[in-house]
Amino acid sequence: MSSKMKFCLNIPTRLIFGAGELNNLSKLSLPGKKALIVISGGTSMKRYGYLDRLQAQLAKAGVDSVTFDKIMPNPIKSHVNEGAALCVQEKCDFVIGMGGGSSIDSAKAIAIVAAGGGDFWDYVQGGTGGGRPIARALPIVAIPTTAGTGTEVDLWGVVTNEETQEKMGFGSPMIYPALAIVDPELMVTVPPRLTAYQGFDAFFHAAEGYIGKAHTPISDLYALEATRLLYKYLPVAVNDPNNLWARIKVAWASTLAGMVESTSCCTGEHAMEHAMSAFYPDLPHGAGLIALSQSYFKTFKNDAMKRYMKMTEKMTQAKSARPSDFLDALARMQRQCGVDDLRLSDWGITEADFERFADNAIATGQAMLDLDPRFLNREEIIDIYRDAFK
Amino acid sequence: MSSKMKFCLNIPTRLIFGAGELNNLSKLSLPGKKALIVISGGTSMKRYGYLDRLQAQLAKAGVDSVTFDKIMPNPIKSHVNEGAALCVQEKCDFVIGMGGGSSIDSAKAIAIVAAGGGDFWDYVQGGTGGGRPIARALPIVAIPTTAGTGTEVDLWGVVTNEETQEKMGFGSPMIYPALAIVDPELMVTVPPRLTAYQGFDAFFHAAEGYIGKAHTPISDLYALEATRLLYKYLPVAVNDPNNLWARIKVAWASTLAGMVESTSCCTGEHAMEHAMSAFYPDLPHGAGLIALSQSYFKTFKNDAMKRYMKMTEKMTQAKSARPSDFLDALARMQRQCGVDDLRLSDWGITEADFERFADNAIATGQAMLDLDPRFLNREEIIDIYRDAFK
Repeated sequence: MSSKMKFCLNIPTRLIFGAGELNNLSKLSLPGKKALIVISGGTSMKRYGYLDRLQAQLAKAGVDSVTFDKIMPNPIKSHVNEGAALCVQEKCDFVIGMGGGSSIDSAKAIAIVAAGGGDFWDYVQGGTGGGRPIARALPIVAIPTTAGTGTEVDLWGVVTNEETQEKMGFGSPMIYPALAIVDPELMVTVPPRLTAYQGFDAFFHAAEGYIGKAHTPISDLYALEATRLLYKYLPVAVNDPNNLWARIKVAWASTLAGMVESTSCCTGEHAMEHAMSAFYPDLPHGAGLIALSQSYFKTFKNDAMKRYMKMTEKMTQAKSARPSDFLDALARMQRQCGVDDLRLSDWGITEADFERFADNAIATGQAMLDLDPRFLNREEIIDIYRDAFK
Repeated sequence: MSSKMKFCLNIPTRLIFGAGELNNLSKLSLPGKKALIVISGGTSMKRYGYLDRLQAQLAKAGVDSVTFDKIMPNPIKSHVNEGAALCVQEKCDFVIGMGGGSSIDSAKAIAIVAAGGGDFWDYVQGGTGGGRPIARALPIVAIPTTAGTGTEVDLWGVVTNEETQEKMGFGSPMIYPALAIVDPELMVTVPPRLTAYQGFDAFFHAAEGYIGKAHTPISDLYALEATRLLYKYLPVAVNDPNNLWARIKVAWASTLAGMVESTSCCTGEHAMEHAMSAFYPDLPHGAGLIALSQSYFKTFKNDAMKRYMKMTEKMTQAKSARPSDFLDALARMQRQCGVDDLRLSDWGITEADFERFADNAIATGQAMLDLDPRFLNREEIIDIYRDAFK
């Protein structure tokens, strides 16, 4: 454990947290004079008036804006390149991502390409990525309208190369948002099922960061608080979507879990899920994680026993006697959120996919697999997919 | 509590934590080409070789340096102005504070005057300060060799105007250190008595920030972990000074408590102590806090009952049934550190001082007094001094 007392902490993002805070955006110091607003190709940002409110706040602050509204739930490379071209053409000097992780991650990717030129895949490390260093990026403002990714306070993003079927993470200190506005009022419109998927994404950022080899004293603090809050409040938010207090707690837990991603790191579960949703783009990331989770965490229950028990004790506020208590608590939470019945086959996945999933996870996610409590070989990874399929 | 779920988090400092990390300074990206090194007028930075090691690391990184070695335990305005003049004359483009809080706080003050000109007192808010806004500062690197102030990760400093006997805090987001290197190996040379004084300074940053009105969900997380660690490890570090593991834990707790100062704030106890050491410069800040602490915290035990009990439970890892359990735990910790017998009279303070102390605390520290769990009037402040004197 001594070696774990060496670590770095540097999250430069200015985080503004609170219900209603989008309405105060015009009073904040913004990092530019003309914004590219990046939102999804869906209708919710317009239908709920969030885009109008953002544009009105920017106008009030004397900031021009242009909107790019094509991002898909699993964002793709060609949209990043298209958004960056628009950003350059319109002479935008910062990028605002508003929406779920897909919009904010795309804003990050656009900020890289708009500042450095070229094709986005040039900047991706690993897989077929070009490995070009990310030397700079336009300033980024993140306004999440879902509670899950934590991307508003981390240095990561995920984009899929639709030509090669690689869903790849990318990261750089350059893409920490300069400003993050986490306004839980924007989240009450998220339907129960998506609330659960996204909330479990946050939960696994925290839980993986806690059991993984990259954990640090500061990530532990964030991770244990995030898992505690999600165990208590995610079922409330799922079953009572208009409960603002639960939305606030879940939003804060998600941001804390994002801070785990910046001070520890996700592990193999995320690598294995990225492989699945690379081949099955309709599979929501959180649903894939939930479907894998029992099989994944069961694999390591004897490798990180104390951490499993400590995390369970924080979640349940009761003594834990064995690491499998964590699996029980996780199952209970999934039952309370109505997502205990997810199966990989629900999205058309078959046993025939496991080998290519494993190969893809290893090719694109080895850095995360390396942080698992114990190293898994290809056969063991396939075993987890198989176990999760049952 | 709902209102407390609105908050801002922004600590841009890059923190490098770990035993031996001073030896890696040359590998880090430094914020300039020529440093003014600010250290105390004492001998320890030279005697223990810390200054030599710092200069060697800078040379290895190709960074020039000039040393200003006059800072006193309670740093004074005239030294700040003198250091700033040297900084400008030598064309230094960043400032390194190495040592206790006095050296790092002086480095912050020098960075303000060197960048903005004028007299340091122009920039102080309140008291006889000029109230000039702090628009910029040279980049600051903080290398604490004591565990107590937390100034390496906060936006505060404290300097005394020796002409007016005002010990005043100053603060600005401009003076967050760009880089903080917290190397607990540098702390094993601190003698037991000072270890205790400094450790309790950190403890009160956390405890005040936790019970005070400015607390936030993130400061609570930092504060509870800091008080837990200090309750457990400060007595070990005091009684076994070469115990590096205890030094590491105490150093981390002190940095966490500094993060409390950046996300919550100190309260009236600090204002009342600053008044004491303004008139009695030989009184160590931590000793003054310890001498006041039982009387101060007793005053609010019915105003923040739940917080007193929650903090006690984290510290002692046992159920708490009443807020006075905190006073008992505090007394136990002070006994174990050999500082339970401090009296204000030990430094020549008499009952005749109480009125001027109270007036000074109100004049220079009203902003902190305003954050107490309940507002105290002048008579109640005098009562705390009187009770602490008994």
